[in-house]
Amino acid sequence: MRIGILNSGGDCPGLNAVIHGVVCAACKLGWEVVGFRDGFEGLLPPGDYTMLDPSRTVGITKLGGTILGTTNKGHFVAKVGEGKATTVPADVLEKAKATLRHLEIGALIVVGGDGSMTTALQLFREGIPVIGVPKSIDNDLASTAMTFGFMSAVASVVDALDRLHTTAESHKRVMVLEVMGRHAGWIALYGGVGGSADIILLPEIPFSMKRVADVINQRDAHGHHSTLIVVAEGAKFEAGGLVTKEKVGGQGEDRLGGIGERVALRAQELTGKEARECTLGHLQRGGPPTSLDRILALRFGVKAVQLIQDGKFGRMVSYQQYLVGDVSIEDAVSKLRLVEKDNELVMAARSVGISFGDETQ
Amino acid sequence: MRIGILNSGGDCPGLNAVIHGVVCAACKLGWEVVGFRDGFEGLLPPGDYTMLDPSRTVGITKLGGTILGTTNKGHFVAKVGEGKATTVPADVLEKAKATLRHLEIGALIVVGGDGSMTTALQLFREGIPVIGVPKSIDNDLASTAMTFGFMSAVASVVDALDRLHTTAESHKRVMVLEVMGRHAGWIALYGGVGGSADIILLPEIPFSMKRVADVINQRDAHGHHSTLIVVAEGAKFEAGGLVTKEKVGGQGEDRLGGIGERVALRAQELTGKEARECTLGHLQRGGPPTSLDRILALRFGVKAVQLIQDGKFGRMVSYQQYLVGDVSIEDAVSKLRLVEKDNELVMAARSVGISFGDETQ
Amino acid sequence: MRIGILNSGGDCPGLNAVIHGVVCAACKLGWEVVGFRDGFEGLLPPGDYTMLDPSRTVGITKLGGTILGTTNKGHFVAKVGEGKATTVPADVLEKAKATLRHLEIGALIVVGGDGSMTTALQLFREGIPVIGVPKSIDNDLASTAMTFGFMSAVASVVDALDRLHTTAESHKRVMVLEVMGRHAGWIALYGGVGGSADIILLPEIPFSMKRVADVINQRDAHGHHSTLIVVAEGAKFEAGGLVTKEKVGGQGEDRLGGIGERVALRAQELTGKEARECTLGHLQRGGPPTSLDRILALRFGVKAVQLIQDGKFGRMVSYQQYLVGDVSIEDAVSKLRLVEKDNELVMAARSVGISFGDETQ
Amino acid sequence: MRIGILNSGGDCPGLNAVIHGVVCAACKLGWEVVGFRDGFEGLLPPGDYTMLDPSRTVGITKLGGTILGTTNKGHFVAKVGEGKATTVPADVLEKAKATLRHLEIGALIVVGGDGSMTTALQLFREGIPVIGVPKSIDNDLASTAMTFGFMSAVASVVDALDRLHTTAESHKRVMVLEVMGRHAGWIALYGGVGGSADIILLPEIPFSMKRVADVINQRDAHGHHSTLIVVAEGAKFEAGGLVTKEKVGGQGEDRLGGIGERVALRAQELTGKEARECTLGHLQRGGPPTSLDRILALRFGVKAVQLIQDGKFGRMVSYQQYLVGDVSIEDAVSKLRLVEKDNELVMAARSVGISFGDETQ
Repeated sequence: MRIGILNSGGDCPGLNAVIHGVVCAACKLGWEVVGFRDGFEGLLPPGDYTMLDPSRTVGITKLGGTILGTTNKGHFVAKVGEGKATTVPADVLEKAKATLRHLEIGALIVVGGDGSMTTALQLFREGIPVIGVPKSIDNDLASTAMTFGFMSAVASVVDALDRLHTTAESHKRVMVLEVMGRHAGWIALYGGVGGSADIILLPEIPFSMKRVADVINQRDAHGHHSTLIVVAEGAKFEAGGLVTKEKVGGQGEDRLGGIGERVALRAQELTGKEARECTLGHLQRGGPPTSLDRILALRFGVKAVQLIQDGKFGRMVSYQQYLVGDVSIEDAVSKLRLVEKDNELVMAARSVGISFGDETQ
Repeated sequence: MRIGILNSGGDCPGLNAVIHGVVCAACKLGWEVVGFRDGFEGLLPPGDYTMLDPSRTVGITKLGGTILGTTNKGHFVAKVGEGKATTVPADVLEKAKATLRHLEIGALIVVGGDGSMTTALQLFREGIPVIGVPKSIDNDLASTAMTFGFMSAVASVVDALDRLHTTAESHKRVMVLEVMGRHAGWIALYGGVGGSADIILLPEIPFSMKRVADVINQRDAHGHHSTLIVVAEGAKFEAGGLVTKEKVGGQGEDRLGGIGERVALRAQELTGKEARECTLGHLQRGGPPTSLDRILALRFGVKAVQLIQDGKFGRMVSYQQYLVGDVSIEDAVSKLRLVEKDNELVMAARSVGISFGDETQ
Repeated sequence: MRIGILNSGGDCPGLNAVIHGVVCAACKLGWEVVGFRDGFEGLLPPGDYTMLDPSRTVGITKLGGTILGTTNKGHFVAKVGEGKATTVPADVLEKAKATLRHLEIGALIVVGGDGSMTTALQLFREGIPVIGVPKSIDNDLASTAMTFGFMSAVASVVDALDRLHTTAESHKRVMVLEVMGRHAGWIALYGGVGGSADIILLPEIPFSMKRVADVINQRDAHGHHSTLIVVAEGAKFEAGGLVTKEKVGGQGEDRLGGIGERVALRAQELTGKEARECTLGHLQRGGPPTSLDRILALRFGVKAVQLIQDGKFGRMVSYQQYLVGDVSIEDAVSKLRLVEKDNELVMAARSVGISFGDETQ
Repeated sequence: MRIGILNSGGDCPGLNAVIHGVVCAACKLGWEVVGFRDGFEGLLPPGDYTMLDPSRTVGITKLGGTILGTTNKGHFVAKVGEGKATTVPADVLEKAKATLRHLEIGALIVVGGDGSMTTALQLFREGIPVIGVPKSIDNDLASTAMTFGFMSAVASVVDALDRLHTTAESHKRVMVLEVMGRHAGWIALYGGVGGSADIILLPEIPFSMKRVADVINQRDAHGHHSTLIVVAEGAKFEAGGLVTKEKVGGQGEDRLGGIGERVALRAQELTGKEARECTLGHLQRGGPPTSLDRILALRFGVKAVQLIQDGKFGRMVSYQQYLVGDVSIEDAVSKLRLVEKDNELVMAARSVGISFGDETQ
């Protein structure tokens, strides 16, 4: 038996642990493992790949990134969300199939996000025995209670907030930290609560800068002269809110440097306090996985091999009720899990006085 | 309204986050919070306590230990497990009640382990409005799916294994790391899988040194000249196993330095390879809480205040299905959760070639 | 005896260790310590201060920032460098003297950078018994071989590069990290060498984007498809270089987001490879001090007290030949230490193939 | 040109950075690099080695241990110190020479401690063009102001003390941390000051347990109910001191578990306070190098190649006055640098109230 594995989409802490899990579990069964490079692109003839065995993967679980490389571009990109659902062209699929046939790959494990699962599903429908492993640093897939990488990203945010906390206090400043989360605010929510932010701004809860400024001023009045704000990159101003991109100098969005900078500029204008901004960016993505992410990712890898063993193709590994199980890829794709207004952690955060920049106290 | 809080038993990363959660949530409701020092001992007349408010607890969530102090000794110790179930003497209870009455404490939050919950239950039966918050660094309470502190302890173990890994490889040695876990092996299991140990020895799975030596030798034969072993302090040799305390020099157990040292000595004897031992000890307990432990502990604190608000006395905070809920203290005490043989993570570990020192491959 | 201490200028890891060192050493001599808040501003009548003793400072050495607060603005700012040398107005000085007299401060310890030392010198000339403690996260003071905080900033840069390394490799990208260093490139140099950057761009060594692009392309040709670039915020393009602010969209410098973004944009244009940028910003400044910074800062604090004891006013603590000594503040101010072209570490970096974006190989 | 490199003695953070520095610098000159495995043992015919180039060493600088392996045993051990000065047998030397001749090695870089330098010197006298690179995690070589690995070990000690601090305070305990340092107490001294220990016990300053107990009791009386003690493994009780191995149960030294355990036991006996012990052991040795250790080690590697280029054989790399230079191996061996009583850091530590367990306050 020979199986293939590839990583697709943005990199995420834990990818190497998935690979290690797959390789060790497959090796124990006497199987060979082919690692395709740079996502689905590695499937293009003649195939860009490397043979993997445990001696190649020992020690990689603690490393960020992926030894196989990955990409969120290329010939196989199937766009999802935002109304566009494109598919992989037939000739590209045929080429991939030819490579897999040529290399005698009995099953293909695809580790990727929602877009990659859409591609994986297409491959499966073309007759390729595919197993999916979900990857979402944002932890926003409805079909799995947890994805690896998320906890590592949260740890980065918490570490950054700890650092910003002391400098903010020393200078009595407002500090704004922009973190990942285009559609779902889980990283901002968990990172903000874990790092003792005072204000958390999420894509799911529109905020007003007036309310943000009120909170800063109230804190000041109570002797808390610094304020920590975490803002998800996809956070949105309330309709009719005070800041729009036009109002901050009239320049194009590209040059504005993101929501974090806009929040900081406007907070400074509205409160008169010094505000500084920091965008965590790729530092969230590239770090080493935390202990739990290593473990979860390894389990995902092991489960993928078991699904192959059981012949359960077209299935995606999924974490449910603290156990690693599986769902059909078809059921899994295009279902996001967003932060709801009455989410328990949102409510707990409000209970300890964290503001979400809205009118709810 | 004035409420009290105390920590009891061994310290655990996250205790300060519980305190911060309680204080902030109570403050938002306009309540006062009295923090009793050194566990239940602080309840002895005239009461050893400090008034807490958010300005006192800001910044403490990232610190290990507890600002209130704690103890696992004293007048209130109710022993559980091992057949002994002692109770707190009536006169001691009366003294505690007198202090709470004198200070006009409307509800008492007890943060502690199984023994402390037994004491809490006794107080509750005496008419004191008690709320329990579970604390178990071993994560071995059946009544809650997760306790804070556990993930931090696992992170310490993983960090230690990462360190030992490079030195073990450089010197082609066997390295044994002894970790916490007298009855339940969760720390060893998670730490061992997360830190890529080769052999994991748990209280729940009796092991034989012969099998351990076989694994070391097989690894050597396959070119892996170093072996990492994690052993829980309560791990047990198989009946009829090769090592007993008598056989290692005939000295008293106190002088043996624990199971880690015995495993290392015996592994060296049986394989002829250099073996070294390291006991992680208090380094597991005293560190800063990880992001997730901070969040979980904060939520536990918030929930405790909500239970008071709802008048649900005699209840213990509990994490179930990713939500923080509650159970009755009475139902919760004395129920341990141990690692079962067919636990998914145990099975996954076996799948990637980790040995548990037993005959199962 | 009663002494005063204040922190001035930007915050820097280690300030709290200086405070702890001063407080403990003074306490041992039976002195009282007054901590002035928010830099020299705390000297304005009636004085904004707090009494310090070891029980207040225990545990602070590991924290970033300063418990006293600091500012780089206000009434006392003496500008240095760039040709401008302003002085503190006479009435402001008189007010400060009045506060010190009123509080019976026998000596004042000023912890600050070059600008703060200029102010300290002015106070000293006005008859105030001043001791200086140098603070420069950039480590660019000629009068001391090392300043605390620098090593912590370097550690932040190295950690960030480690994180960017894996994600850069996974995506075959160019990653640009902008770090502190307006005039002196020590943080970029040490951080870049420690974090295995491929290209380091310093204020002292003008670089050309053509050369940077050549290096990226050469690396690509040799199979290294990712490139890590560290750029100090004050790094300068060679005269006649390919990029000026006008050429990148014609927008004002404020909106350009700094040199890092410009290098990334231009590298992408010139090489066709994806380039991403990250500005470390306040994350460098606010973190906990490394072990060595804690020790160095503590020694600086102790030495300041000894200088008071010896009546050596007008002197600044200085690290020379691995020993903590002192120099006159007058001799110390306005003398920067820059990275020279033949600096040993620059040469070593070139030896291992690191490029500085200039023509020297 | 083809050069060889080997690591000898105990592993130490930074060894991989030396290798990377050597490999990159040699590669830039067009040389080949042969890495011998497991210290001098790799020189035994037919030679146990691997060819090294930058693609093999990229990314290793951040890893502890050594990719080449090392040993402090075997055929080449030249014992130094303690009066014994043995030499490597002539036949073993001949075998090594044969291997080097056979592989056409033009120069051999030996990275090791004092014992390894003695062997290196013997090889040099036999006509082998040898360059030495000093390695001492204890930083106790008189011939170099700093060795790599030391700062990493100190960082481990400081991290451990931070962890023990919170648990010690929570339980009002005495915590004893045993660290490396058989003859020289630099790790204990720097680690203890950096980690805010209350008592530091060094090989160079004999201590009395009576004095240690007095300090604990005095602290208790002043409201500091916990005490942190760092003890170097080679710390010695004063002649006539209260504790000897005979007095602690009459058992052999092997079973006593080291000085840390003895100090803890005796402190508990003398003060009645709970005392706990932790031995850091291999956790100090195996961790990743700190930023500065990576840089220093890399510079050492580069310098070794330069010395070969300059034909300066029989020389050892040395750090002096912040520059990497060289000394003759002959002058370097067998000269230790110990902590002197009037060492500035010892004096500074005393100034802030740290006790060394002796009569000096």
